[in-house]
Amino acid sequence: MKLLVLNGPNLNLLGQREPEVYGSTTVADIEAGLRAAFPEVNFAFEQHNGEGDLIDALHGTDADGVVLNPGGYAHTSVALHDAVAAIETPVVEVHISNVFGREDFRQRLLIAPAAAGVITGFGVAGYRLAVQYFLDRV
Amino acid sequence: MKLLVLNGPNLNLLGQREPEVYGSTTVADIEAGLRAAFPEVNFAFEQHNGEGDLIDALHGTDADGVVLNPGGYAHTSVALHDAVAAIETPVVEVHISNVFGREDFRQRLLIAPAAAGVITGFGVAGYRLAVQYFLDRV
Amino acid sequence: MKLLVLNGPNLNLLGQREPEVYGSTTVADIEAGLRAAFPEVNFAFEQHNGEGDLIDALHGTDADGVVLNPGGYAHTSVALHDAVAAIETPVVEVHISNVFGREDFRQRLLIAPAAAGVITGFGVAGYRLAVQYFLDRV
Amino acid sequence: MKLLVLNGPNLNLLGQREPEVYGSTTVADIEAGLRAAFPEVNFAFEQHNGEGDLIDALHGTDADGVVLNPGGYAHTSVALHDAVAAIETPVVEVHISNVFGREDFRQRLLIAPAAAGVITGFGVAGYRLAVQYFLDRV
Amino acid sequence: MKLLVLNGPNLNLLGQREPEVYGSTTVADIEAGLRAAFPEVNFAFEQHNGEGDLIDALHGTDADGVVLNPGGYAHTSVALHDAVAAIETPVVEVHISNVFGREDFRQRLLIAPAAAGVITGFGVAGYRLAVQYFLDRV
Amino acid sequence: MKLLVLNGPNLNLLGQREPEVYGSTTVADIEAGLRAAFPEVNFAFEQHNGEGDLIDALHGTDADGVVLNPGGYAHTSVALHDAVAAIETPVVEVHISNVFGREDFRQRLLIAPAAAGVITGFGVAGYRLAVQYFLDRV
Amino acid sequence: MKLLVLNGPNLNLLGQREPEVYGSTTVADIEAGLRAAFPEVNFAFEQHNGEGDLIDALHGTDADGVVLNPGGYAHTSVALHDAVAAIETPVVEVHISNVFGREDFRQRLLIAPAAAGVITGFGVAGYRLAVQYFLDRV
Amino acid sequence: MKLLVLNGPNLNLLGQREPEVYGSTTVADIEAGLRAAFPEVNFAFEQHNGEGDLIDALHGTDADGVVLNPGGYAHTSVALHDAVAAIETPVVEVHISNVFGREDFRQRLLIAPAAAGVITGFGVAGYRLAVQYFLDRV
Amino acid sequence: MKLLVLNGPNLNLLGQREPEVYGSTTVADIEAGLRAAFPEVNFAFEQHNGEGDLIDALHGTDADGVVLNPGGYAHTSVALHDAVAAIETPVVEVHISNVFGREDFRQRLLIAPAAAGVITGFGVAGYRLAVQYFLDRV
Amino acid sequence: MKLLVLNGPNLNLLGQREPEVYGSTTVADIEAGLRAAFPEVNFAFEQHNGEGDLIDALHGTDADGVVLNPGGYAHTSVALHDAVAAIETPVVEVHISNVFGREDFRQRLLIAPAAAGVITGFGVAGYRLAVQYFLDRV
Amino acid sequence: MKLLVLNGPNLNLLGQREPEVYGSTTVADIEAGLRAAFPEVNFAFEQHNGEGDLIDALHGTDADGVVLNPGGYAHTSVALHDAVAAIETPVVEVHISNVFGREDFRQRLLIAPAAAGVITGFGVAGYRLAVQYFLDRV
Amino acid sequence: MKLLVLNGPNLNLLGQREPEVYGSTTVADIEAGLRAAFPEVNFAFEQHNGEGDLIDALHGTDADGVVLNPGGYAHTSVALHDAVAAIETPVVEVHISNVFGREDFRQRLLIAPAAAGVITGFGVAGYRLAVQYFLDRV
Repeated sequence: MKLLVLNGPNLNLLGQREPEVYGSTTVADIEAGLRAAFPEVNFAFEQHNGEGDLIDALHGTDADGVVLNPGGYAHTSVALHDAVAAIETPVVEVHISNVFGREDFRQRLLIAPAAAGVITGFGVAGYRLAVQYFLDRV
Repeated sequence: MKLLVLNGPNLNLLGQREPEVYGSTTVADIEAGLRAAFPEVNFAFEQHNGEGDLIDALHGTDADGVVLNPGGYAHTSVALHDAVAAIETPVVEVHISNVFGREDFRQRLLIAPAAAGVITGFGVAGYRLAVQYFLDRV
Repeated sequence: MKLLVLNGPNLNLLGQREPEVYGSTTVADIEAGLRAAFPEVNFAFEQHNGEGDLIDALHGTDADGVVLNPGGYAHTSVALHDAVAAIETPVVEVHISNVFGREDFRQRLLIAPAAAGVITGFGVAGYRLAVQYFLDRV
Repeated sequence: MKLLVLNGPNLNLLGQREPEVYGSTTVADIEAGLRAAFPEVNFAFEQHNGEGDLIDALHGTDADGVVLNPGGYAHTSVALHDAVAAIETPVVEVHISNVFGREDFRQRLLIAPAAAGVITGFGVAGYRLAVQYFLDRV
Repeated sequence: MKLLVLNGPNLNLLGQREPEVYGSTTVADIEAGLRAAFPEVNFAFEQHNGEGDLIDALHGTDADGVVLNPGGYAHTSVALHDAVAAIETPVVEVHISNVFGREDFRQRLLIAPAAAGVITGFGVAGYRLAVQYFLDRV
Repeated sequence: MKLLVLNGPNLNLLGQREPEVYGSTTVADIEAGLRAAFPEVNFAFEQHNGEGDLIDALHGTDADGVVLNPGGYAHTSVALHDAVAAIETPVVEVHISNVFGREDFRQRLLIAPAAAGVITGFGVAGYRLAVQYFLDRV
Repeated sequence: MKLLVLNGPNLNLLGQREPEVYGSTTVADIEAGLRAAFPEVNFAFEQHNGEGDLIDALHGTDADGVVLNPGGYAHTSVALHDAVAAIETPVVEVHISNVFGREDFRQRLLIAPAAAGVITGFGVAGYRLAVQYFLDRV
Repeated sequence: MKLLVLNGPNLNLLGQREPEVYGSTTVADIEAGLRAAFPEVNFAFEQHNGEGDLIDALHGTDADGVVLNPGGYAHTSVALHDAVAAIETPVVEVHISNVFGREDFRQRLLIAPAAAGVITGFGVAGYRLAVQYFLDRV
Repeated sequence: MKLLVLNGPNLNLLGQREPEVYGSTTVADIEAGLRAAFPEVNFAFEQHNGEGDLIDALHGTDADGVVLNPGGYAHTSVALHDAVAAIETPVVEVHISNVFGREDFRQRLLIAPAAAGVITGFGVAGYRLAVQYFLDRV
Repeated sequence: MKLLVLNGPNLNLLGQREPEVYGSTTVADIEAGLRAAFPEVNFAFEQHNGEGDLIDALHGTDADGVVLNPGGYAHTSVALHDAVAAIETPVVEVHISNVFGREDFRQRLLIAPAAAGVITGFGVAGYRLAVQYFLDRV
Repeated sequence: MKLLVLNGPNLNLLGQREPEVYGSTTVADIEAGLRAAFPEVNFAFEQHNGEGDLIDALHGTDADGVVLNPGGYAHTSVALHDAVAAIETPVVEVHISNVFGREDFRQRLLIAPAAAGVITGFGVAGYRLAVQYFLDRV
Repeated sequence: MKLLVLNGPNLNLLGQREPEVYGSTTVADIEAGLRAAFPEVNFAFEQHNGEGDLIDALHGTDADGVVLNPGGYAHTSVALHDAVAAIETPVVEVHISNVFGREDFRQRLLIAPAAAGVITGFGVAGYRLAVQYFLDRV
């Protein structure tokens, strides 16, 4: 199984900044952790701050599934919603923090209606659950 | 590890009605599936249609974690929000369907700010992910 | 034909309180009136103040149709909406008063999209019309 | 008893168009059906597409009651609300489809606060219930 | 004078959980404190987590007044509003915390329009003020 | 000076119905009163229930000014707004009742931005003030 | 007849500033114009920029009627609404400009429900109409 | 090919009034221009100010397509939406001005969901594009 | 103990006007009643119609507590909210009428988040409860 | 004449995915079709998924007109609105589907106020109409 | 150059209360700091808690510019908006705290559209920037 | 001191287009002006039209402060909000025009809660004030 873990804006800073909100794990730690936990999975990891770059990555992937953390675009991007809806690869949306307990402008999930499912609030453990989902459904 | 799987209103009918939305798995199937998949977990299963009964169940549990599918109360119940916030046991909210792609009155998640995390849209596989989360965090 | 007349919260007080709004007929009067007017119908009558109890009653009925006055839950209950949607028995929603001419918080009918139809504002005569509907459709 | 059955915009096309929404019964069928079912009633039937014409019809009627299907004006017409409020003849509002399960712009019933009652979602059977109401109240 | 002190959902946990919000006083402490402070009052104390159970308690009371802390139902329950409106016994609504300084979903008080008055934000001292009100009005 | 007094929907019933809201003066009384009070004015009086008929009347007038009581269309008609904006004849909008103290759906005045001015709440005296305005501005 | 013409915030600058919006007439011109036009009226003129000062003026007047231009307070002051409602002297609200064609924050008229009537958009001629109203109603 | 060009309220005044918004072309010019540009099309031209008259025209047409400029009804008429949905003839909605750059009350297009397509902002050239569409689709 | 009873706009008219809403007790009666009921308290009484005057009174007080009836400013004043938040003296907000059962513009309590607590709907008895609160907390 | 046809996010997938919504025509088909239909036009074709790339393309074009399909950015991008407003080249906005009949989050057109006009719902034929517009206006 | 530094409600308490929000600098410190930093400027300093007093100060100033901190009136005062718009003296609005990161009721800036510019969030340094602006523009 | 002046979408066109809104100064002029006015500052200048590019620039800067003009993204970008929140470098948001006096879709400032402060409406002088702020705070 081949999975693309696609991180959106600001996640390149994960673990360095605001650890009280997002924890101290870095994206590299996530990558290492997933590879260790799921050696049978062929992982690809990408991170982009640009909305268009994320759309490109979704269009171009040949993975069997995508684990997408769209960051702040989750709440504002109709274009990413359309990209997820346009491809046949199933996409699982992951958020590290519990967005429903944060600011008003994080209450609306615009991409989610096109996703296979959404996992929020479990910290970086959410990525593992998303991978687990792809493994379970086989 | 002891986990309470707490299902809310109408989930007693799961699998019998509207299989095009909720699938054909029953609550009994979920129970059997979870016991088979996680033999190391000591499961308790409850289902209530009443909001107060669900609050009672949350108050009274001695489990290490709760997997809560609050059904329609997810969108209307401040009292269940308060119950989840009041107990120390961590609660994972699960929804079988992708609520964000359904009616307007399902877009607001009132209980979620008090939950440890939310898993939506994966069908009954969401329950397995919730249990996996509790196992992973030990 | 077997019909369940299911009354929701506060309807046990009908006729005793606020007769200027709801009239002086009691639930017992409604029951007697319906039995007299429709001797060919096999009626069951239930009244519950609890949301969960009403859901239970809907799930458990073996009637050919349900006449449901959900009272205040009409405006707040997604769970009752789901219960009505989940069962195959057709449900007619009845309101004694003209809810559209009352408070703002009574303008939204959350259960109604799942009902076979809605009858509002005719006083207790609305129950007779609901029964008439079930008879006419045979 | 003399009753005016007053149909609003587009109802002249009933039965010809969109039968999956409105059924295949025509206005003529409704008329014939009502006359057959209620031979004791002296019926008048009118259909107008214009808001002003419907107001004129309401003002000018000498019927004992009006069965009004205001069609799309139900959601936008303060003037028809005022017309119903201005006359002493009781008016029952009927909708063939379950408007509460349709588009957002059909959720608000502007005329209804001035009506004696509202019957929605029963298909053309709603007209019979409205007539039945007038007979029952005598 | 006979007074019913009726506590709603989650108040059974008062004093045990979240003392930074609700203080460390328990419901038993409230009861003891009120009995000590007002020996001339014949108190009844009830606590229910279910909306229907609270409605039942309101309907069934023979007290001269009710001190009601509806908890989270204060913001969502039309049915409890109707129950308070339906009985002749005056009801005083009490909230321990200052709900106006908390989450958005606590800003609307749905039951309050039917109450004799509302007391919020004084901690458990609010119960004493409510009792004092009933004594003063004699 | 030539003035058109143009009354909209339901004003033909003025004085006959709901005198507690609109007073007992009829449109004929208004006409007689204005002619008596302002003998120097050449009055034309029209009343239409139809939105299109009112637009036609506005388009076709050769008066020096129009006193328009748009009734319920005041709150819903963009087309009448456009008609008032399209003609060069100044139009004064008059309402008999104080619409700001009535239902929510009367709070928005859609035609008013295109009017020369608005006079509300003075009963039928508002017509006299509107005429006075046209006389004063000469 | 004794009338108080009460001007609110910024009207002391009338005629000096923004003549393209408010005209070039000053408050003194209004006063002179009204005295000349209505020699039979005993006028008092006051202008205050403070909300409390306007309330004081309303409370303290012994006039038979008040012509009130509340300026910007028209859109924000519940306290002035209550003051107008509290006194028995009838109050006519006047606005020089057509507030309905201006900014969004001028669309709501909070004081108006308590006024005898509202006159907007006629420039300073609105004051004359308001006085005329008081004369006509005698 | 037979096409009905159906103009709504106030378009009879096109070219005479407010040329800075709508240009100086008249409806007669539009007609002449379309006939000259598309000699192969059998055109019918109608203009009505009444909502009901427009509905009648839509119901009664035997054209292969309708070019509809609904004017101000575009933003308020559910009945016209239903009329366009009810007939099988495809309808193209045209607006001369760019409604999205105008008042708030022009931002909502209520008829459009039932139209084949919408063309806005091109001035009277929009009519030519609409006709071109019908020619291209053959 | 020293307490400031601070009454806001229009409360100087209490008892004289609208007794059906506010009762017939005057501010002087309240003062006399409180002095009689609580002889051990050193009371200061102030009433101001101006928002700034109320802010000044709050800033300048050396009382141990303030009983504030902000009248209509309760719903519109951020500045009074900030004043209550800025001083260390605890402030209890009192409303004579049940504001939650009145107009829409009285549903929002802007000052309340900064108050120690709110007491509404008990008539002038609310003042006594507020004083009682200050006595009880010692 | 030189025209830039600028396609936004996800339009590179046109024809491959969701043909039931967008048809089976590809962007290459559109290009070929336009070149064939309008041999006299000098076309440039660009497609970008990134918002900034689309802004760059608008800034840098030397075309006489732009046919812009902004995809999902139509509903969320103030920056593209500003880009269209900033350049002198006229821009026609095209949407393949009838956005007004789709999700709520597609009802607002943010770029449109700055466009020369908007064409929606005609499928890929909309591009031809946009080109036709530029040809007609010469 | 002559500048008026005009502080609104509660700013007289600056530095004494809530230093965690507003810092410990007093208004006197601001005055001293500005005089020291800008000896070439002829400063006037005023502080008022009343809305009308602030309007008076704006009307009466002969300064070349005004630095206005309207405090809580920034979010509620149309009258102050009108005062700033009415005078020719340019007004710079200053807020010490970052109002956009605070309560919902501070998100709307009602006065700002009439100001020359707005400076928020820099603490008391914002006053210096405002003065600097007036110096730079000469 | 090292400062990054980061300009967002469409600011590369500054001075060339719409000078009536944004003035005739170019970005190069701003750069030259700042370098001349503040020779002691080590300036870096960047301008990007892409949201992701702006996020990259924020992440990668080693400046002591950032002067950010986010253009249209100010009103729509949660991702830029998060980027500003994620870095430790203080960011001052600058807008050339007074956004509060422009379109509705410019009233919400989404990035601002994370900024050190906001400066709007002073034209290009706003950049100087932002730099001054960084110098003053040392």
